[in-house]
Amino acid sequence: MKFSSKIQRCALSPIRKFYPYQVECVKQGKKIYHLNIGQPDIKTPPIYFETVRNFSAPVLEYAPSPGIPSVIQAVQKYFEEIGIHYDTPDIVVTSGGSEALMFTMATILDDGDEILIPEPFYPNYSTFVNTTGGKIVPIPTTAEEGYHYADKDKIEKLITPHTRAIMFTNPGNPTGAVLNHEECKMLAELAVKHDLFLIADEVYREFIYSGEPLSSMGSFKEAENHVILIDSVSKRFSACGARIGVVITKNKDFQGEFMKLCQARLSVATLDQLASAQLYTVDKSYFEEVRVEYKKRRDTVYNALSKIPGVICKEPKGAFYVMAKLPVKNAEDFLVWLLTEFEDKGETVMYAPGGGFYATPGKGLNEIRIAYVLNCQDLERAIELLRLALEQYKD
Amino acid sequence: MKFSSKIQRCALSPIRKFYPYQVECVKQGKKIYHLNIGQPDIKTPPIYFETVRNFSAPVLEYAPSPGIPSVIQAVQKYFEEIGIHYDTPDIVVTSGGSEALMFTMATILDDGDEILIPEPFYPNYSTFVNTTGGKIVPIPTTAEEGYHYADKDKIEKLITPHTRAIMFTNPGNPTGAVLNHEECKMLAELAVKHDLFLIADEVYREFIYSGEPLSSMGSFKEAENHVILIDSVSKRFSACGARIGVVITKNKDFQGEFMKLCQARLSVATLDQLASAQLYTVDKSYFEEVRVEYKKRRDTVYNALSKIPGVICKEPKGAFYVMAKLPVKNAEDFLVWLLTEFEDKGETVMYAPGGGFYATPGKGLNEIRIAYVLNCQDLERAIELLRLALEQYKD
Repeated sequence: MKFSSKIQRCALSPIRKFYPYQVECVKQGKKIYHLNIGQPDIKTPPIYFETVRNFSAPVLEYAPSPGIPSVIQAVQKYFEEIGIHYDTPDIVVTSGGSEALMFTMATILDDGDEILIPEPFYPNYSTFVNTTGGKIVPIPTTAEEGYHYADKDKIEKLITPHTRAIMFTNPGNPTGAVLNHEECKMLAELAVKHDLFLIADEVYREFIYSGEPLSSMGSFKEAENHVILIDSVSKRFSACGARIGVVITKNKDFQGEFMKLCQARLSVATLDQLASAQLYTVDKSYFEEVRVEYKKRRDTVYNALSKIPGVICKEPKGAFYVMAKLPVKNAEDFLVWLLTEFEDKGETVMYAPGGGFYATPGKGLNEIRIAYVLNCQDLERAIELLRLALEQYKD
Repeated sequence: MKFSSKIQRCALSPIRKFYPYQVECVKQGKKIYHLNIGQPDIKTPPIYFETVRNFSAPVLEYAPSPGIPSVIQAVQKYFEEIGIHYDTPDIVVTSGGSEALMFTMATILDDGDEILIPEPFYPNYSTFVNTTGGKIVPIPTTAEEGYHYADKDKIEKLITPHTRAIMFTNPGNPTGAVLNHEECKMLAELAVKHDLFLIADEVYREFIYSGEPLSSMGSFKEAENHVILIDSVSKRFSACGARIGVVITKNKDFQGEFMKLCQARLSVATLDQLASAQLYTVDKSYFEEVRVEYKKRRDTVYNALSKIPGVICKEPKGAFYVMAKLPVKNAEDFLVWLLTEFEDKGETVMYAPGGGFYATPGKGLNEIRIAYVLNCQDLERAIELLRLALEQYKD
């Protein structure tokens, strides 16, 4: 029996193939420091659990397809506070940022259409694009330049009659790169000039460490018909398991098409929506505390990492990832060695190999992504293990 | 800005256009009996809410992409009890039956591929198929024959080199038709003979009213590589707002491709999975009570409906829908008249017009779907209103 040619262009998670090594490593009694997983350890605000506890209707009914009004209003208020006004129909609740992205790609991309995405990028973008028949055209970057991609000339020369959109994660996963205001403005202007959608995946918006004010691509009024924001409670409130995201845009035609998919899947989980709406009532100090903690972690990882001879890495400005180039030929081989051969006092370390974040074959092979979602003590030890391993490793 | 040609082939819910009439009708102080909505009024088993109340982890983490083991084990046990054995990797948790269907279509259908579906069918099937570039080839039926579709010759002559699958809801939405064992066997044999997937949407499996044993397309061992089961807690446990479904198949290649989509969307809501697993511990008497209640409703609706002069309708055997042909030219026009002109003691009635359940233009225009999810007294009054309205209506 045949499968869709589109699904066959997609891949299983590149991390998956290291799982058997991980299992074997644990079986041998070794402790692994996991720098490979993006699951935050920060507590979910208790009001989430209080809200689901207080649900008292006897029937767990479908929610409306565009989302429960309290979630939409909470998101509206959140943006109002950073100076951006959205009307109710501009915001649609989705099953996580993932569904928002999947449905956005299905709404705008057709066979042969192109979407520009800075490389390295969040690997699931490939599946979201490939299932539509569209094609990712990578905007190249380098570790040496801190994975900087917001370069007008570089982007403009990739635009063809087939280009439909530019998509980026800001703050960036996997790079931690953050766009400044001028760069955002330039991207907005490019989108208007070339009549493209600008898909801004801003799920890490709160995670910026240089004291910049919170911003969003939604603040460029002249591009409001082009900008599609992707947002989520997952990282902002450490509520990844809620699967509550939103797609936000002033483009009414887009919302009309997007809603067909929302209606077809009926609704997003009712309790999770009700509880997520309440997350937005937490005091602003919550974000500040979380930011301080992650900044400490960022500093810990970056300081230790940049001292390792041969490692190339610029200070990441946001999200909770660092991407770095290692003095090895192949970071996948090195990871297998870390799990099978290396140990220091019974401990080793795991990261995400860089190749999986690139669409261009052969790129990123000596790069790695580190997620700093452990406490500082563990992070220090993890980077120490990486340093010790690099000293011993011969490739 | 252009949108995908595939999304443009999809439509918004056909029910949507009657919403303004409904609002106006309520504004005028009229009471509407809703026979148009598939939201059951049966209580969700309290254990669902107890489980979410007892969740005590401090962080709401991502669940594994294939689903939380307790849900998978609960579904496994459910099938074990009706004599069907599934291994753990055969079952994957999805965000409702909707995501299971959407991902299944994306896994198997390519541009130009055909899928046979008995007509009338659940309207969202259109969106699930159209977004892949595939095409629905309807298996025609008639109200006079009780929407019977399981006819070998009728189906076989629709199979072409482009046919990839046969898909059906059993028990049927919107028709309430239920396949007997011989018909299931015939479909299984057809799938094997022509090397097709057989996608059995069995979310109404519990809702059968003629004392037949619970059955499933999963029981045909010879077709196990062809059968893809779609299941869900929504109707079985009146937990539509949980959005917990499953896709089940022994076809390992299918599961491998399907998993790419599951990994890309990361996971299904954590609390809803944990609570849904517990739903499967309710006593069997719960299903029996629900079945007795729905059978009473089915009888109430069918008896009253079949006595109305000019109405054509066969006794539905399952699910909670009746499809009927009315003695009117156009059921949409009649519905608008019901909402704007008609009333009896300040009351009127709403149904789902039949045209929305057909892919073939012009078909089903004088048909309607009734969902019997109200109590018997309300159902009697609703059908009485329909009878009175038909006596007065001139088209």
